[in-house]
Amino acid sequence: MPVVTPISATAAELDTVRFNADGLVPAIVQEHGTGRVLMMAWMNDGSLRETLETGRTVFWSRSRQERWRKGDTSGDRQWVREAWYDCDGDALLLVVEQEGAGACHTGERSCFHRAFGAATAAATDAAAKADAAAKADATTATDPVAKTDAEAATAGAGTP
Amino acid sequence: MPVVTPISATAAELDTVRFNADGLVPAIVQEHGTGRVLMMAWMNDGSLRETLETGRTVFWSRSRQERWRKGDTSGDRQWVREAWYDCDGDALLLVVEQEGAGACHTGERSCFHRAFGAATAAATDAAAKADAAAKADATTATDPVAKTDAEAATAGAGTP
Repeated sequence: MPVVTPISATAAELDTVRFNADGLVPAIVQEHGTGRVLMMAWMNDGSLRETLETGRTVFWSRSRQERWRKGDTSGDRQWVREAWYDCDGDALLLVVEQEGAGACHTGERSCFHRAFGAATAAATDAAAKADAAAKADATTATDPVAKTDAEAATAGAGTP
Repeated sequence: MPVVTPISATAAELDTVRFNADGLVPAIVQEHGTGRVLMMAWMNDGSLRETLETGRTVFWSRSRQERWRKGDTSGDRQWVREAWYDCDGDALLLVVEQEGAGACHTGERSCFHRAFGAATAAATDAAAKADAAAKADATTATDPVAKTDAEAATAGAGTP
């Protein structure tokens, strides 16, 4: 188990945080070491203080309207290494060691595992590969590797 | 000027995004290359589409209730390299090349430049340094460097 490192925040630091009308502030969670952004969730005053005092991330579930300590159900606990608040005090950044498979309930390491334009980029990549391979095929037709590449790329581009 | 790379998002990808009651979704901005989290701001449907289509971050200012294109006033433009949406579709992650001094209006590179516990950690560091220096002073009193360090650390620890 990772070492627990509670953070002793001062009253002045905590007073800087501005909660919204629902008493919540968005908290970004970033993985220590890799810098990967794992997830974003919400904290209220109580869950922020508990997070800092215990060294584990605790959030407020808006859908269930209850305190939610990350990893209690899944085992994928998050151990806080650093906690930052932004210039306006209306967003938080927690740097954590992520235990287990990852932060996402889908089993992915990060909740941000889907990119805009992924479908388009994949189609463009396949088309570009097919084009490049076709050219390679035309100029180095005797090279069996180029031929194999061209066939594979063409097959890929043809996938609906 | 960095190369502009518009992202061709599909209708299905855009439909996945869930805006809140105010029509907004939080957008985390991370620096390409360093992985540093630079800021968090809000987008509505229009600013998200404009961001993807133009390759520059565009937000919605909640305080001014208006479209806000990052860098138009400050010159600190953000050039989008990747755009991700999370598993619930209610948070975005933009990976950008940050132009100019940084993302924060204070002149800092990141809006997250203040850490919880910083005051406490600094006091602890100073006390530890003073302690270590005092020990070094006791054992290597003839070393002028150790003496200077001890004096400096003691002076630092005494600062209210």
